[in-house]
Amino acid sequence: MNYKIVLNILGRTLLIEALLLICPMLVGFFYKENTYIAFLIPILGLVTVGFPFALIKIKDKSIRTKEGFVIVALAWIMLSLVGAIPFVISGAIPSYVDALFETVSGFTTTGASILSNVEALPNSLLFWRSFTHFIGGMGILVFVLAILPKSDAGSMHVFRAESPGPSVGKLVGKLAFTARILYGIYIVMFVLEVIMLICGGMPIFDSIVHSFGTAGTGGFSIKNSSIAYYNNTYFEMVIAVFMFLFGINFNVFYLLLIGNFKKVLKSEELRTYFFMIVGATIIIAVNILANCVNFGQAIRYSFFQVASIGSSTGYVSADFDQWPALSKSIIVVLMIVGACGGSTGGGIKVSRLVILVKSVFADIKRIMHPRSVVSVKFEGELLEKETERNVRSYFTLWILIVALTTVLLCIDVDDFLTNFTATLSCIGNIGPGLSTAGLGMVGPMFNYGVYSAYSKILMSIVMLFGRLEIFPILMLFIPRTWKKN
Amino acid sequence: MNYKIVLNILGRTLLIEALLLICPMLVGFFYKENTYIAFLIPILGLVTVGFPFALIKIKDKSIRTKEGFVIVALAWIMLSLVGAIPFVISGAIPSYVDALFETVSGFTTTGASILSNVEALPNSLLFWRSFTHFIGGMGILVFVLAILPKSDAGSMHVFRAESPGPSVGKLVGKLAFTARILYGIYIVMFVLEVIMLICGGMPIFDSIVHSFGTAGTGGFSIKNSSIAYYNNTYFEMVIAVFMFLFGINFNVFYLLLIGNFKKVLKSEELRTYFFMIVGATIIIAVNILANCVNFGQAIRYSFFQVASIGSSTGYVSADFDQWPALSKSIIVVLMIVGACGGSTGGGIKVSRLVILVKSVFADIKRIMHPRSVVSVKFEGELLEKETERNVRSYFTLWILIVALTTVLLCIDVDDFLTNFTATLSCIGNIGPGLSTAGLGMVGPMFNYGVYSAYSKILMSIVMLFGRLEIFPILMLFIPRTWKKN
Repeated sequence: MNYKIVLNILGRTLLIEALLLICPMLVGFFYKENTYIAFLIPILGLVTVGFPFALIKIKDKSIRTKEGFVIVALAWIMLSLVGAIPFVISGAIPSYVDALFETVSGFTTTGASILSNVEALPNSLLFWRSFTHFIGGMGILVFVLAILPKSDAGSMHVFRAESPGPSVGKLVGKLAFTARILYGIYIVMFVLEVIMLICGGMPIFDSIVHSFGTAGTGGFSIKNSSIAYYNNTYFEMVIAVFMFLFGINFNVFYLLLIGNFKKVLKSEELRTYFFMIVGATIIIAVNILANCVNFGQAIRYSFFQVASIGSSTGYVSADFDQWPALSKSIIVVLMIVGACGGSTGGGIKVSRLVILVKSVFADIKRIMHPRSVVSVKFEGELLEKETERNVRSYFTLWILIVALTTVLLCIDVDDFLTNFTATLSCIGNIGPGLSTAGLGMVGPMFNYGVYSAYSKILMSIVMLFGRLEIFPILMLFIPRTWKKN
Repeated sequence: MNYKIVLNILGRTLLIEALLLICPMLVGFFYKENTYIAFLIPILGLVTVGFPFALIKIKDKSIRTKEGFVIVALAWIMLSLVGAIPFVISGAIPSYVDALFETVSGFTTTGASILSNVEALPNSLLFWRSFTHFIGGMGILVFVLAILPKSDAGSMHVFRAESPGPSVGKLVGKLAFTARILYGIYIVMFVLEVIMLICGGMPIFDSIVHSFGTAGTGGFSIKNSSIAYYNNTYFEMVIAVFMFLFGINFNVFYLLLIGNFKKVLKSEELRTYFFMIVGATIIIAVNILANCVNFGQAIRYSFFQVASIGSSTGYVSADFDQWPALSKSIIVVLMIVGACGGSTGGGIKVSRLVILVKSVFADIKRIMHPRSVVSVKFEGELLEKETERNVRSYFTLWILIVALTTVLLCIDVDDFLTNFTATLSCIGNIGPGLSTAGLGMVGPMFNYGVYSAYSKILMSIVMLFGRLEIFPILMLFIPRTWKKN
């Protein structure tokens, strides 16, 4: 382990968090709220601790896979530990564990909340809560890479460890440029959504925070009943379309920008994601028809919820806990699959699923024709054996973590379905879960406040597992990681 | 496809089913029931159709993987199609689809039942129902191999396709001897259980049918409330111990027979299975303590149910639907894992899970140290890359089938948890599932009668997927399988 470079980059990340915390403080001033102290204290703390580390002189600039994983894992944990402080100091969330859960849920773009009355929070804290989605969506270290003047080859490992999906590649020659292009697309799409919501009549503040939640595929709302509060078809459609868009691999937008439409149309992941969303929308619309006044309303509710869960955002426009089992089961499948790799969304990722299925069918061919050579192609290219292996390992670990977490949560709350879907929701960075009829716990209209501190810490770890795609966090628990070079 | 050899072996299998059907007919005579015609008609039919096929002259004796799979898949489907007839003719189960579900559930040793009043059935049909467990447990084609005078190299593919577990090997040089040894151990253990139950005071008929159900890890009882009917600690303990034993890889018993105790003690699969059962028993006992009069009773209920679900038998001594969520979640995990490979039990199999976990940890090592060579060992030997791949593919397919089946069942019955656990129960060849509190459908004290014909056929296919470990049945749906040589 190259400790110096790890500490140096962590130091810089702390300083950037200090900068980011200034934004909600300014919002507090704007709304004349007396909350600035809640932000000032962590800012001062971050600067005091961050500077010495950021100034560490580095001789050995090598960052290997190991360092990449550790930097990303520790950075995210530290960001969350500090990010929770404003909630506690302001008194908005008096318990630190609750505040930590909320912050991890924010940064990991899960959107699971322990708050039963969100509307009681001051605007500055609502802003910070949703801003964590925006920071976490594209990734803070991608941001660090984007603004660093020079980045060496090793940074690729950091980039890889933080970006979701089975294979992460550079868009252009230099990594720093790639990071800037990604952030550029991200911010432009965010601004577009804000403008469209404002034009439709949503208050400016609401438009900004809900667009933060959409861009990061997070799902924190500033209303207790989420988007259902507005009961406005235009808002729902704008947000649904943007949720769908933010669930797409950002490479696709880059290809569109440089005019390579052919490659976009040929993308297997995009096509699968598209048909998944359209298919699920139609089936659920037909299935909930009896609960709606007409087919238009059914499509409206269905498309919004499918885009929301399919992109792993988690906004809610209807209480899907009341829907028939078929719709619920499709929602569970969407939770598991999640969005595209290279998007801001969570879940196992569409690309992983496509690779998994292709790889299994290649194996069936191999069993039937033992002497033939069978290869797997993805997105028009031959799939590397290593990628295939990693996808399979990822899938297995994912299932094991879901099973273990479900059992561990059952110690706390006595309802299997609630714990199972809460686990899926946390590891997939979705937000809401399902709950057994009548118990109403983590369902779309409820929150995670019912869980004890033990479960909240467990779920926070699981959310980090989901956002950082397991390996970085797992690495922290392996003693060999910490051996000196 | 070598059609001639496929038809020849299928013909012989039909003749053997005719022989097997004589047993329940004799039971009918013994109890002076008027049911002989229900067995005679299928017997005559089997002989008429079976003989010409069994007499087909074979020039090309080659059986490859493909033929092995197809023979096994078709044999099991035919056995079930014919085995259902006595239920219909006798009027015990008037609907053919229901009878087919019950028969597939019997042969696959699932033990899921559509009958709400089992006790109303005549003894001959109760015998046949439980006898299917005994036939299906060790496998009918293993039986065919055991009694055939000569078997050539190709038979190994048939043996492999029918026997559960990630890698199937011969115990001794000749396959026919291996099959005879396996059946020998199977029958001796079965007889032992019968004797022990009779000695404890269980009626002879009850002892035999319940031992059929234990030996095959099936779970059909002749009492509506399963083993709970007797409310007898001795019966429960005898059955629980034998359920545990029949969930063990039969290689272990062979090693014990030839005195190789060292290898038995070193078996990773056995140790994992043992600790899984013991661990689950203790946790559940503590968890249900509040529902019981004392710790003794808690251990009694817990051990019985853990051995029953862990071995994929499905006998019930207490209504575990009333247990706390922690116990239920452990039961769900046991359902998924299942018994050891090479046993009569179902589920993913302990050996597959061990290989899966080891293989994933090898991958983590590979990611951390890209240049090092990491190998995976299982049961003291280096694991072949092919076995590892197949285990991973099996796991993936298993999860995909569970997800798809759950969604498809939700079209029929409007309860997600019921459908999810019914699917796990069917593919794992367990029997009972869980049901949402108050709905009581496939729970331990209920049955599958609530499902429509569509679901029953779907679940029958899933049970066959589970028992034959996916590939043979999947093969039938691939057009290339049917191409002539």
